[in-house]
Amino acid sequence: MIFQKRISTGPYSEGFHLITDIILRELKVLPETGLVNIFLQHTSAALAINENADPTVRYDFKTFFKKLVPENFPGFTHTIEGNDDMPSHIKSSIFGQSLVIPIVNHRVALGTWQGIYLCEFRRNGGKREIIITVLGE
Amino acid sequence: MIFQKRISTGPYSEGFHLITDIILRELKVLPETGLVNIFLQHTSAALAINENADPTVRYDFKTFFKKLVPENFPGFTHTIEGNDDMPSHIKSSIFGQSLVIPIVNHRVALGTWQGIYLCEFRRNGGKREIIITVLGE
Amino acid sequence: MIFQKRISTGPYSEGFHLITDIILRELKVLPETGLVNIFLQHTSAALAINENADPTVRYDFKTFFKKLVPENFPGFTHTIEGNDDMPSHIKSSIFGQSLVIPIVNHRVALGTWQGIYLCEFRRNGGKREIIITVLGE
Repeated sequence: MIFQKRISTGPYSEGFHLITDIILRELKVLPETGLVNIFLQHTSAALAINENADPTVRYDFKTFFKKLVPENFPGFTHTIEGNDDMPSHIKSSIFGQSLVIPIVNHRVALGTWQGIYLCEFRRNGGKREIIITVLGE
Repeated sequence: MIFQKRISTGPYSEGFHLITDIILRELKVLPETGLVNIFLQHTSAALAINENADPTVRYDFKTFFKKLVPENFPGFTHTIEGNDDMPSHIKSSIFGQSLVIPIVNHRVALGTWQGIYLCEFRRNGGKREIIITVLGE
Repeated sequence: MIFQKRISTGPYSEGFHLITDIILRELKVLPETGLVNIFLQHTSAALAINENADPTVRYDFKTFFKKLVPENFPGFTHTIEGNDDMPSHIKSSIFGQSLVIPIVNHRVALGTWQGIYLCEFRRNGGKREIIITVLGE
């Protein structure tokens, strides 16, 4: 069984956003066993799996990574698209744009505390395109 | 062919631990060609692929990332679960919780120097749940 | 449908190199729907997806990560293989060695601005081995 769906989501403000429900509602009929890939077609945003309960976790992610990859980093030459552009590219590859999660007993087998984050690194990122692909039996 | 197995491993001390053998012993019958996904159901630990021989590599990983994501980072607000909690969430997403490795000629095609790391970021992380999924022919 | 191909590429100079065309030319016959995995069998280089147009992005990636993971980081003990070895291992796991990209309508569904980077972290990395695996229907 193969299933594929394209969704468009956002725009999101700069920061880390829980999108678990947005993904799961596209996955109502799943194989018993398999894998799901969630792929973001962008280079200044990312997907991640992290804590799904306390919003301060997502707040601290934003604070930490804005400090780790500063907009005024000396040496950046790719600045024509704005101060937030090059840091966004770097953060996009630190997190990655592609998740693979197992399907167990017809369900996406996230752990109890795992949620799916849309990580928006631009101040005005616009809509974000995601392709969901399921392989299984 | 689809194969899936859940394992529970640990507890591990804070640091980077080679678990290649623990994973491979679950994979004795493999398809000729395919992919294996190894998925950790947690948000304060991670999976990674790195050097499998010299333990100083894993020691240096711990040293470096404890400095990169300090427990006393100014600005962390999610501190209720301990000083090592928020740094663990961040490190979990820098490394990721999901590996995909090809299967070639019935074997997991890790490179000569590649091993699988269980990255434990908590001081008392407890047991860790891993789901292994094989797709192939 | 399963398809698998091993390629050997490089050597590359230290830095970030667009290899999209090298990968795509191995993928001329694709299933209508599926996934492709691109896997690098090394621990001091990486694969990433990022901006495919402006070479200054790739230049800034090199500058930033050489600063983030310095060769003279105090505390590194794994130094026998050269000052650039331990930083390369760390950068290899920050980026990862494995990409999963969906196949949509017989094409690798990279976004408009997404390209595939070979991230070479060693000064003399030599040839790099990549395994490409396609699953689909």
